[in-house]
Amino acid sequence: MELGFIGLGTMGAPMVLNLLKAGHRVRVWNRSAAPLQALVAAGAEAVDSPALAARAEVLISMLGDDTAIRAVFLDAAAIDGLAPGSIHVNMSTVSVALAREMAALHQARGVGYVSAPVLGRVDVAAAGNLNILASGAAEALARVQPLFDVLGRKTWPFGADAESACVAKLSANLMIAAAIEATAEASTLATGYGISRADFIEMITSTLFAVPVYQGYGKLMVDKQFEPAGFKLSLGLKDVRLALEAGEAAQVPLPFASVLKDNLLDGMAHGQADQDWASLSEVSDRRAGSR
Amino acid sequence: MELGFIGLGTMGAPMVLNLLKAGHRVRVWNRSAAPLQALVAAGAEAVDSPALAARAEVLISMLGDDTAIRAVFLDAAAIDGLAPGSIHVNMSTVSVALAREMAALHQARGVGYVSAPVLGRVDVAAAGNLNILASGAAEALARVQPLFDVLGRKTWPFGADAESACVAKLSANLMIAAAIEATAEASTLATGYGISRADFIEMITSTLFAVPVYQGYGKLMVDKQFEPAGFKLSLGLKDVRLALEAGEAAQVPLPFASVLKDNLLDGMAHGQADQDWASLSEVSDRRAGSR
Amino acid sequence: MELGFIGLGTMGAPMVLNLLKAGHRVRVWNRSAAPLQALVAAGAEAVDSPALAARAEVLISMLGDDTAIRAVFLDAAAIDGLAPGSIHVNMSTVSVALAREMAALHQARGVGYVSAPVLGRVDVAAAGNLNILASGAAEALARVQPLFDVLGRKTWPFGADAESACVAKLSANLMIAAAIEATAEASTLATGYGISRADFIEMITSTLFAVPVYQGYGKLMVDKQFEPAGFKLSLGLKDVRLALEAGEAAQVPLPFASVLKDNLLDGMAHGQADQDWASLSEVSDRRAGSR
Amino acid sequence: MELGFIGLGTMGAPMVLNLLKAGHRVRVWNRSAAPLQALVAAGAEAVDSPALAARAEVLISMLGDDTAIRAVFLDAAAIDGLAPGSIHVNMSTVSVALAREMAALHQARGVGYVSAPVLGRVDVAAAGNLNILASGAAEALARVQPLFDVLGRKTWPFGADAESACVAKLSANLMIAAAIEATAEASTLATGYGISRADFIEMITSTLFAVPVYQGYGKLMVDKQFEPAGFKLSLGLKDVRLALEAGEAAQVPLPFASVLKDNLLDGMAHGQADQDWASLSEVSDRRAGSR
Repeated sequence: MELGFIGLGTMGAPMVLNLLKAGHRVRVWNRSAAPLQALVAAGAEAVDSPALAARAEVLISMLGDDTAIRAVFLDAAAIDGLAPGSIHVNMSTVSVALAREMAALHQARGVGYVSAPVLGRVDVAAAGNLNILASGAAEALARVQPLFDVLGRKTWPFGADAESACVAKLSANLMIAAAIEATAEASTLATGYGISRADFIEMITSTLFAVPVYQGYGKLMVDKQFEPAGFKLSLGLKDVRLALEAGEAAQVPLPFASVLKDNLLDGMAHGQADQDWASLSEVSDRRAGSR
Repeated sequence: MELGFIGLGTMGAPMVLNLLKAGHRVRVWNRSAAPLQALVAAGAEAVDSPALAARAEVLISMLGDDTAIRAVFLDAAAIDGLAPGSIHVNMSTVSVALAREMAALHQARGVGYVSAPVLGRVDVAAAGNLNILASGAAEALARVQPLFDVLGRKTWPFGADAESACVAKLSANLMIAAAIEATAEASTLATGYGISRADFIEMITSTLFAVPVYQGYGKLMVDKQFEPAGFKLSLGLKDVRLALEAGEAAQVPLPFASVLKDNLLDGMAHGQADQDWASLSEVSDRRAGSR
Repeated sequence: MELGFIGLGTMGAPMVLNLLKAGHRVRVWNRSAAPLQALVAAGAEAVDSPALAARAEVLISMLGDDTAIRAVFLDAAAIDGLAPGSIHVNMSTVSVALAREMAALHQARGVGYVSAPVLGRVDVAAAGNLNILASGAAEALARVQPLFDVLGRKTWPFGADAESACVAKLSANLMIAAAIEATAEASTLATGYGISRADFIEMITSTLFAVPVYQGYGKLMVDKQFEPAGFKLSLGLKDVRLALEAGEAAQVPLPFASVLKDNLLDGMAHGQADQDWASLSEVSDRRAGSR
Repeated sequence: MELGFIGLGTMGAPMVLNLLKAGHRVRVWNRSAAPLQALVAAGAEAVDSPALAARAEVLISMLGDDTAIRAVFLDAAAIDGLAPGSIHVNMSTVSVALAREMAALHQARGVGYVSAPVLGRVDVAAAGNLNILASGAAEALARVQPLFDVLGRKTWPFGADAESACVAKLSANLMIAAAIEATAEASTLATGYGISRADFIEMITSTLFAVPVYQGYGKLMVDKQFEPAGFKLSLGLKDVRLALEAGEAAQVPLPFASVLKDNLLDGMAHGQADQDWASLSEVSDRRAGSR
């Protein structure tokens, strides 16, 4: 297929490589030039503007947040490069509001719009094993499924509304955040009785919660290894805020998310913005006077 | 070994069978006579009072809560049956305050006291695969380790203080409660955008949270199969309260636990006391107006 | 002084009357024509566009929210009517973000910008007894002080930044919301023990909290007189959200505000959007199963 | 009347003086002897045991908490001094559970039991201007009303159940705690935007919240004058806990109280136990990184 790809960060770059390996032709654009050389060497065509990348049968975007999407698609007019009948697959984690706005703008141009945020980090992307949460018009979803089959191990369909897959992704991230906070609180409680955090977390992640998300964040807490961050606390705050905004728009109280936002702000106020969000354990410890 | 065993409920009865199979002699007592026949048939000796059961090298108790422990050991004086040099292994989930009180009372009588609450439900107990969280004097722990090897797959030592293992257990239960609430909130948010709870929970428990605790409670939420309860909401409230009391005594703020207590009370106030605590999803749905 | 006034709602109209009585000349504009006749009869000049109203020495705006301000000043270009050297006094309750944006836009045009939200409802406005929270450049504040002396009993200065007075107002509204929720929770607790809400609220608002804000909202709770609303629950939610946004931008955790947002959402989800926000007591009652 | 009075602390001593001035005969007992001399000089009769003080037509107790009541009435057997037909008026702030237990114990002895906690501090007690929250059997209430008329400016009746007046008092204290926390959060938010806490609190306590409870605690926050404490943070935590226990027993979720408990624990963990509970502002500041 003739593809465009915008956003060649730690996730985007290995995804492009997988698409090239699968025989697709990919025109790529990135804000900074750094990642281009390796991809061009692998067969990608670098273009000078997002709008040029958008001239494709399917355009995939993998950008950081709402602001980046707005900058590229609205300010830098990538959206004008999309031809009627083409499809834009937005794999970034964005807000419900932006998903709705983008879907309407694309529809007005006769362009398909698919939301397809993913679960999985860099190594999973490189292995083509992402879990892809997808929503959009059924026909559009069907046309891009072969691409999803290259990029991921499984596609989870969440219906026709552009925002649905975004909400599923934000809900999933909320559950990760809650898992971190629960581990932080429970282990701080344990340390209040002379139990080492390491002992408690080893027990709980070997028994009830023997799954990478708990094991990985638990280990970061035990080692106090918060930098470099796998996922920055400031980004965690952004995602929890997006979940709360989605909750407000649908009139869903989310008391755990509210606690998380306050605790993440506590972390921000104490210089933890660039630490991994596993450092919620530092907030918990600090409040208990043990740091 | 000459053992006594008090508390032959759904957990205690299969534990006694395992001890008998391993060649131990077990004198048993229970408040109601129902479970006795099967155990006597398997070789146990039924006795008429808790104090008679307590006349053993090691007494194991597996009772429901602080009230039951107080009723049997203080009101019904089981503690007077314990001979100096013997050991009482309390495998019930009790409060920090009770653990401390019991440890002192036993020490005054020259009796060892070991806290050993467990992770695992009936089928795990029957298979001898419990995870046993243990604390108490090192010598006492060493003496009862052969019994733990019969009852469980692994023993997790948490030091010399009787209350430590109780805190570890309460912390573990707090994490289970938080996992339920997080699943409830996230899936209620998803349903607010037209995603079925079943679809969201299938995705999340097949990917990030592919572990029985999420899968089991998630399925109960999807099926709205809250009775008969695997673990009653009223008991969940009790355990969260005990965690909060432990937090207060050690000056550890626990904001997730506070949210849980309020939501569990909301459930109690709406007739959910005897439902499985997975019905926290009903509280979440109700607050969002979707029930 | 030559004044313009935009926004002739329940607050704006009596404020214009007071300015006229004090001898000022006032050009007025409103989205709907209904309030114009009475004001013209009192000496105001009705104009056809917000930009015409803005051609004045001082323009006062009193609109409902950020959206209304944007519609009038940016979309309908009222801002273009403001001449260099003039001053715009925005007495609406708006977000920190909007205050900053407006201040920058005005400064670029050489126009002064003063934030001046008020405490007090219609009758207080009519009596010229508002409390005015003001921030902006010192010179601009000095120039408009004679107008504040007409409209209010006291001006509370909060410095040179346009957003400061907005934050003070949002903080004040947060305290009102918290007073309502505290009264709701405490009285629901009392009713749980057979005390009538009326008896408890009479006692508390005759003793410790003998002040109109508690007495007024307390009476609404007792009488369940939530419509017509003095201040709609949906507007309360908006103001609490703005306080939370201000908190997030300044990295200030606000756990009471977080609880309020969840409870106001609970109210929204149960059809209380147009009820007075005193109906937080209904949320409290409902959660306790007593409604 | 022949009275007994147990508990001659800062509140009890001036209350006894008022009773003496009104012509009553008062036998007094206190754990420590310090306050006795002045009261004896004023006409009181000091006795050697709580049971001797209890031999009266009406016994009034004014003690610190449940523990003190239990120590004096159960351990030191003051209850045995109460003759059938006499009345015990407990003016201490105690738990619902203790009120119920005491009422039953008194009833079994044919002794009346009245709960009568008060609103007001030392100076109010000295002036005989307390607000008295009272519950108990109607006949008993009627008999002791002349004493209440000496001690207070008004009696607020809350029915026949001993615990009702306790719940009313705990609910009132919960509202005070919430007022402190709301002032703390709102003023911390204001300081995040360069507004001084003094300016914000002067404004808010001169306008919407012009009432001593806000003015007094607000001033303590501004002056950071937390010691000596008017009401210790550790006692505030106790009262909030009692409110939460009352809420749990009646299945009433109290999310503000839950936040308060966590924040008070945060204060305890940072050495604020003996500070005035107005120092909740320190918790708020600390979480925002501004301390």
